[in-house]
Amino acid sequence: MKRPTKRTSKAVASKKRSACPIACTLDIVGDKWTLLVIRDLFAGKSHYHEFLQSPERIATNILAERLTRLTSAGLITAHASPQREGASLYQLTPRGQSLFPVLVAIRDWGLTNITGTKAHMHVPTPK
Amino acid sequence: MKRPTKRTSKAVASKKRSACPIACTLDIVGDKWTLLVIRDLFAGKSHYHEFLQSPERIATNILAERLTRLTSAGLITAHASPQREGASLYQLTPRGQSLFPVLVAIRDWGLTNITGTKAHMHVPTPK
Repeated sequence: MKRPTKRTSKAVASKKRSACPIACTLDIVGDKWTLLVIRDLFAGKSHYHEFLQSPERIATNILAERLTRLTSAGLITAHASPQREGASLYQLTPRGQSLFPVLVAIRDWGLTNITGTKAHMHVPTPK
Repeated sequence: MKRPTKRTSKAVASKKRSACPIACTLDIVGDKWTLLVIRDLFAGKSHYHEFLQSPERIATNILAERLTRLTSAGLITAHASPQREGASLYQLTPRGQSLFPVLVAIRDWGLTNITGTKAHMHVPTPK
């Protein structure tokens, strides 16, 4: 897998559409996939192949791009995996963990407003 | 402007990627623009030209598509405007208003984590 390129979170912030915190947050996580990767990280997934196994079947090129973007934004870190040779281990940074209330609000809205949704996943509270 | 086509929220729900409430919610509002239109509606905007005036400069074709999608998902209603002849008046439904905690969580994350963001906008609590 392509290793995420190094960019600081300042680089992300410099592409602001406005000073609105909602617009700026959506510039980082405003798409159909990024918050699902964050969800999976909260659920304990940390390896590339684990994200690919989620029921939404993220495409491998989209996953690679999102992991790069999340690393650039300082929301996750990537290190050599101690379990799988040649693989990366992805982990939420404190900045990434602070997205927990966003995930909870989105989950709760879905559970209340979309029939057939189930909160079957264990999402632990960040330490 | 093209009038939004009528589709029930069930039609939106039928395209589920999984039963995960986060994935299903992102299928409706998971992009860079939809929640900005919702934000503007909370801030009191209700006409097409008002959304276009927001600082993020949404493109007219994107705005038209998002308004159609939000109407289809039962998050907003469109009626003939009593103020502007030929124009539509857009309003949040109770289902749309219930996205308020999602916007607040996203706003708060942005304010804490992205330098240079400002909560200058008046966002009233829904009745």
